[in-house]
Amino acid sequence: MSVNSYYLDESGAIQTNLSAAQMTEALHSGKGMLWVDISETGEAEGALLADVFQFHRLAIEDCVESQIHPPKIDDYESYLFIVVHGINHAAEATESVETAELEMFLGANYVVSNHNFPLYSVDELKRLVESSARPLQRGADFFVYMLIDALVDNVLPTLDLMIDVAEDVEEQALTTSNPATLQSIQRLKRSVRRVHRTMVPQRELLNRLSRGEFALVRQQTRVFYRDIYDHLVLIEDLNMDIRESADNAVTTYLSAVANRQNETMKVLAVVGAIFLPLTLLAGVYGMNFEYMPELQWRHSYFVVVGFMASVIVGALLLFRKRGWFKPQPLPVHILGPSAVRKDKLRGHVPDADRQPGA
Amino acid sequence: MSVNSYYLDESGAIQTNLSAAQMTEALHSGKGMLWVDISETGEAEGALLADVFQFHRLAIEDCVESQIHPPKIDDYESYLFIVVHGINHAAEATESVETAELEMFLGANYVVSNHNFPLYSVDELKRLVESSARPLQRGADFFVYMLIDALVDNVLPTLDLMIDVAEDVEEQALTTSNPATLQSIQRLKRSVRRVHRTMVPQRELLNRLSRGEFALVRQQTRVFYRDIYDHLVLIEDLNMDIRESADNAVTTYLSAVANRQNETMKVLAVVGAIFLPLTLLAGVYGMNFEYMPELQWRHSYFVVVGFMASVIVGALLLFRKRGWFKPQPLPVHILGPSAVRKDKLRGHVPDADRQPGA
Amino acid sequence: MSVNSYYLDESGAIQTNLSAAQMTEALHSGKGMLWVDISETGEAEGALLADVFQFHRLAIEDCVESQIHPPKIDDYESYLFIVVHGINHAAEATESVETAELEMFLGANYVVSNHNFPLYSVDELKRLVESSARPLQRGADFFVYMLIDALVDNVLPTLDLMIDVAEDVEEQALTTSNPATLQSIQRLKRSVRRVHRTMVPQRELLNRLSRGEFALVRQQTRVFYRDIYDHLVLIEDLNMDIRESADNAVTTYLSAVANRQNETMKVLAVVGAIFLPLTLLAGVYGMNFEYMPELQWRHSYFVVVGFMASVIVGALLLFRKRGWFKPQPLPVHILGPSAVRKDKLRGHVPDADRQPGA
Amino acid sequence: MSVNSYYLDESGAIQTNLSAAQMTEALHSGKGMLWVDISETGEAEGALLADVFQFHRLAIEDCVESQIHPPKIDDYESYLFIVVHGINHAAEATESVETAELEMFLGANYVVSNHNFPLYSVDELKRLVESSARPLQRGADFFVYMLIDALVDNVLPTLDLMIDVAEDVEEQALTTSNPATLQSIQRLKRSVRRVHRTMVPQRELLNRLSRGEFALVRQQTRVFYRDIYDHLVLIEDLNMDIRESADNAVTTYLSAVANRQNETMKVLAVVGAIFLPLTLLAGVYGMNFEYMPELQWRHSYFVVVGFMASVIVGALLLFRKRGWFKPQPLPVHILGPSAVRKDKLRGHVPDADRQPGA
Amino acid sequence: MSVNSYYLDESGAIQTNLSAAQMTEALHSGKGMLWVDISETGEAEGALLADVFQFHRLAIEDCVESQIHPPKIDDYESYLFIVVHGINHAAEATESVETAELEMFLGANYVVSNHNFPLYSVDELKRLVESSARPLQRGADFFVYMLIDALVDNVLPTLDLMIDVAEDVEEQALTTSNPATLQSIQRLKRSVRRVHRTMVPQRELLNRLSRGEFALVRQQTRVFYRDIYDHLVLIEDLNMDIRESADNAVTTYLSAVANRQNETMKVLAVVGAIFLPLTLLAGVYGMNFEYMPELQWRHSYFVVVGFMASVIVGALLLFRKRGWFKPQPLPVHILGPSAVRKDKLRGHVPDADRQPGA
Repeated sequence: MSVNSYYLDESGAIQTNLSAAQMTEALHSGKGMLWVDISETGEAEGALLADVFQFHRLAIEDCVESQIHPPKIDDYESYLFIVVHGINHAAEATESVETAELEMFLGANYVVSNHNFPLYSVDELKRLVESSARPLQRGADFFVYMLIDALVDNVLPTLDLMIDVAEDVEEQALTTSNPATLQSIQRLKRSVRRVHRTMVPQRELLNRLSRGEFALVRQQTRVFYRDIYDHLVLIEDLNMDIRESADNAVTTYLSAVANRQNETMKVLAVVGAIFLPLTLLAGVYGMNFEYMPELQWRHSYFVVVGFMASVIVGALLLFRKRGWFKPQPLPVHILGPSAVRKDKLRGHVPDADRQPGA
Repeated sequence: MSVNSYYLDESGAIQTNLSAAQMTEALHSGKGMLWVDISETGEAEGALLADVFQFHRLAIEDCVESQIHPPKIDDYESYLFIVVHGINHAAEATESVETAELEMFLGANYVVSNHNFPLYSVDELKRLVESSARPLQRGADFFVYMLIDALVDNVLPTLDLMIDVAEDVEEQALTTSNPATLQSIQRLKRSVRRVHRTMVPQRELLNRLSRGEFALVRQQTRVFYRDIYDHLVLIEDLNMDIRESADNAVTTYLSAVANRQNETMKVLAVVGAIFLPLTLLAGVYGMNFEYMPELQWRHSYFVVVGFMASVIVGALLLFRKRGWFKPQPLPVHILGPSAVRKDKLRGHVPDADRQPGA
Repeated sequence: MSVNSYYLDESGAIQTNLSAAQMTEALHSGKGMLWVDISETGEAEGALLADVFQFHRLAIEDCVESQIHPPKIDDYESYLFIVVHGINHAAEATESVETAELEMFLGANYVVSNHNFPLYSVDELKRLVESSARPLQRGADFFVYMLIDALVDNVLPTLDLMIDVAEDVEEQALTTSNPATLQSIQRLKRSVRRVHRTMVPQRELLNRLSRGEFALVRQQTRVFYRDIYDHLVLIEDLNMDIRESADNAVTTYLSAVANRQNETMKVLAVVGAIFLPLTLLAGVYGMNFEYMPELQWRHSYFVVVGFMASVIVGALLLFRKRGWFKPQPLPVHILGPSAVRKDKLRGHVPDADRQPGA
Repeated sequence: MSVNSYYLDESGAIQTNLSAAQMTEALHSGKGMLWVDISETGEAEGALLADVFQFHRLAIEDCVESQIHPPKIDDYESYLFIVVHGINHAAEATESVETAELEMFLGANYVVSNHNFPLYSVDELKRLVESSARPLQRGADFFVYMLIDALVDNVLPTLDLMIDVAEDVEEQALTTSNPATLQSIQRLKRSVRRVHRTMVPQRELLNRLSRGEFALVRQQTRVFYRDIYDHLVLIEDLNMDIRESADNAVTTYLSAVANRQNETMKVLAVVGAIFLPLTLLAGVYGMNFEYMPELQWRHSYFVVVGFMASVIVGALLLFRKRGWFKPQPLPVHILGPSAVRKDKLRGHVPDADRQPGA
Repeated sequence: MSVNSYYLDESGAIQTNLSAAQMTEALHSGKGMLWVDISETGEAEGALLADVFQFHRLAIEDCVESQIHPPKIDDYESYLFIVVHGINHAAEATESVETAELEMFLGANYVVSNHNFPLYSVDELKRLVESSARPLQRGADFFVYMLIDALVDNVLPTLDLMIDVAEDVEEQALTTSNPATLQSIQRLKRSVRRVHRTMVPQRELLNRLSRGEFALVRQQTRVFYRDIYDHLVLIEDLNMDIRESADNAVTTYLSAVANRQNETMKVLAVVGAIFLPLTLLAGVYGMNFEYMPELQWRHSYFVVVGFMASVIVGALLLFRKRGWFKPQPLPVHILGPSAVRKDKLRGHVPDADRQPGA
């Protein structure tokens, strides 16, 4: 539906919103650096990709279809077709995350990016390009690095959210046997698995980009791809921390269910143990035998009732002493992973100012 | 039982229902493109494969036997013998899926396909060929791609069905401890495992077809096999989502059984805690002691009965307040994987119109 | 204890029960095809292997020892020493399976097979050889294929038996909490694991035999070894189906134990909920207060007893309506893996009539 | 915030606290051995790394950021950038461990170490260097070995602590169903996983350092890196022992919860089984039938009460005999992993006195 | 503390207890075969290793330290340093096993073995060498094979013991919910894991020794190392059988705990279901209504009591019929893995008489 194009020509000036003809010219000049960003790709945009850039039909289909494709690099010799995934912010903390897809064509002097939903990370880069030519000056391979880096960085707020949910469910699991808690945990686990499945294949992809397999990625840029790789390792690390919290929460929840059952049973056991014997005693003195000497004694009624009262009080004291009523102590401090681990993410700065070959 | 043959000769005309002699001639001409489809293969068809095509005895046996064979590619130099598996629609949503087998011989200018049960995807291709010569114009390797692609595409409706069952059992598991639910879940897990075991080895198979291992698969066709590969990755992805739903449903079911037990116990505990003490009280005033001053008091009976009534009412209110009767709240919205994930499949179009080497 | 030998000489005649001298001569002629089968190997047979065939001391020890050895191929250049495992029919369906070992020496024009227990598959081959020279005409490498193929085929009846046991325990687990059921399941799992551990290493072994690693296995025979490989894949597939059934049965059993507990508790809860309140009522009218107006009323006894009766009947109806007594419905149809999957095995025919290089 | 520098010049003298100019000179002389240690790295230190050593921008960023980076070796040809992780002592035994990061630059005649928190192992090495020139005499690659070795050695006290916690929770799990125990176990498991995730990637890293991949690591030093590798294998071994203890403790805890529930139920069952029948008996003799012969018998009251008393006593004796009250015997000796396994660590001595190429 | 040395000189005579000078001479002669065995290695022995044999400092440290080292082969070109592990007999069946370490130096014409605890397998070999020169005549590489083979063989009695414990706990788990049973199982699992972790890395080690990686191991000896490899496969096989028994025992134990709970509940349910209704009946006839016709009937007391008695008897019969009291039948035959599997180990004979290159 919308095509944005930026061309840094040889003179260092930036042209925007190029026509198809201008794009073709820029492309064939082999000079400068052209970035075309397409969002909500339809047939018209597909035709542009086919006519101007002459990309392979299958790659174009991957852009036009709304279907999701696995992360991959297809090498068409004169250009690379790269599919990477980011994570969409979940609208609410209780919902599981969804993946967002970004397709990129990396050529000698151009980058075409394509996405069917608006991407915050791409918008940010557009603003950078509009304010300064610098991001385009570093070459096409470095520009692709910037696109991927921004996409991966945007995963962090989602992880932050998931860490909060993880702490939440760990605490809930301790105090409730409400099935909704179990469901929150399972939803969190689903998010963890999606992050895992989205990020792990990209590690391999960035490994390939950083080890010199593709001629279009220059030696001096590879170390930057390696940096994203390290970042992905960190994300997976954090993600596994969250998974562990979720697994722990399931165990805690199930054991809380069992404990709660025990509490219920204790109530019954205490009541039964106290009142069944006393009821028998009352029953005994309710029997109608003719010769029951106690019945005539003056104080026996008071003695019996007093005995009963003291048994009740004594038993309650005894059970309390044995800790049957003691509410389960809440642990003083629940060590969530977030306090410390979130630090891991602090201090990471946007990479736009980095110089290739520094 | 039935042999269908189509021959696109050099003139561009299509001949159908060729005799064995015509097939032999077409084969030896080395020109045009011959497709022979055999279903419900018996001894007669086996003889055809041996006499006309001179395939290896073992490959022919694999076609004639109704036994299932693992997905594989056997390279007999002048032709490839390829076995792939699809998924049969289960007759009912509650049954587990079954695999369907398709054997193919890929030669320089011919394709022989063989299957012991009618395959919807093959029928579709027959209709295409009968209406237009185009599918046959793209060469034998591309035709095999079309056969496999149609087979794999037909897996999607089954996955859709499984997603529905997954949502169903997740919801059921929450509200019932009926063992039939557990069985539905286990049947779903069995389906998931079969899809997994059917699809994963084919990924390797398509990887081999797409990376230039076989001379009979031309460079320009390989990228199409790669496309099926990506498709299989997606199917497995979806399949793992279903598996996770099934695993979650088991946990939910087991915890629902435990919760239900707790409910039962609560009923008993409440009844016991209220009535056992009161029964003792009634028992006490049923004792036959001679000197029990309360017995003569005018209003003591009403006082006692009133006290009992207020204890019963008060206790019920107390237990309600402590949430013992609160029905477990159904979570507002159960996030199934289907709503969003089914989108993944949307927009995938039949591949018959694709051009090799586009 | 017993040595059987068959020699197909150059004239095409078959000699049996050769002396050691005749064996040596046949061996050194480099012509024809000699098969020596040894069972219940002792020191004498060991000496034969050492003197006539001059096999390596370690290989001979592997034959003489009753100890079990892992499946392997040892390449002694002029001959291969191959150890493969089959499965012994378990005497009873409830016992776990045991493995049977077959050692083979494959030379240029001879095969020596060795086993410490009678093997049904070897006996079958002896009968074939005694009735016709054909099995020996296809060369030593093809003869080893026939030995392994017959051994692997004999695994199928055992798998059939295990499928029956799997269906049995799945059904039992649903209806009983008898620990014997749990034990049957665990015994089945042990069998599954043994089949797994016996068959999976042989897959690798047959892979090596079929990919041209050994000069003694001719090109034209390799595809037959590949066929056994496919067969082993199928067996493992079936075996994993059985394992899944067993795993499901454990879950079902454990949840049946929990459900049964719930049933017990319900009985108690129903009885308590009905009779404890009524007992209090009876107790109230058994109190000895002087002023209890109802006591003098003419019909109060009948009213009270009638009320009690109607409470009992009403409560029972209510509990029934809430499904507390509803016997857990047996699922209409338990989908066992056998009905369909056993078909997989149908139609497999003995391989003795196959022609190498067909 | 603080930079410590030591330079062993050609004359064998040690200079400390070098200026930037002196460092540059030492560096370019290609002689002697320079060690610069930076802690709490800020912008000023980053500038030093860029200006004097001219390290790559990305490597410097890794030093300046407080973010955690995965263990890695980046080969910048004229120097290696190595990131390794140690374990920080947890402040309290009940908290989970945290990782500490150490970055090192290994050049031909210099080592730069960088860490954002004070590291005990680096301080120790500073004291060694201040007291003797020997550690600096063995070359840069050996010095890096000393830094890593000291870091890894400092993991052992933490493991010791974890072993103590493991023994503790195993014992607690046996005797309590307090949820705090479950939380301690889960915290321990988290520590185990962190040690695992910190140490296992470093094994690969040290493997690379020890097998001759980097020219900057001399042949004679490699075997020392191999020694750290062996050490890491041992740490992981011990760590897995702790994990097993934790896993066992979870099982023990959950089964203790179930057992405790059973205890509660037994109390109720015993009370019910004894008093319900006797209460019926008392109720029977409390009935008001006119003709109940026992009522007039002289001793029947005493007989009934005596019978009741003997039933109560008899039942209690019977239940005791059947072991219902028997407290669960504490196992005589709980075999923790520590007693023996801690020996594994004994006898390891600081490596400072080792001679390269001994 | 003690050094034993044996030297087979060129004349075929055996010298024992050589001085350091004699050892040096033997070493440098390059002839004959020298075996030095050191136990309880201290500084003095370390010096011997350094001075006479000039081994690398790190290898000597590995010998002197009492710390455990992972199994490994360090190739120092003129000699190999090999660390292997055996299993120490546990003092009692209920304790978990411990590993024993043996270090060996394999040179061209000498073997140095080192161990910090007395090893039964080494003692055995000493006795063989003292009685005959044959073990030393086959070369250093064959001698190392004999040392490892004896060490591995000594694992079998420990496995036998573990099989006995496995059978024991499987049976116990069936009949008791005593936590001590759970602990025995967990101790067994720990032993299984230690055997696993000790033996599996050695498989790789022996694989390397048997495939021609080291020049010091001659072609003809490699097949013997391969034989130990097969042996280790078998041990792991057996070990996994034991692990499965232990896993089964945990499941059995946990389900026994649940079943036991059910038994307790049944007692209560039966008592409640019988006596609560009857107590109500007695209560009804204990009510004090003036007009209760049954009270005056002559036989009503006997009818009521008779009715109660028949209800009690009838209910007990009914419950018995429904199997509530049926003691859980002990399975007729518990198939332990030992009966058959122990056969696997039978018939293995000491390898001292084997001839290399037979």
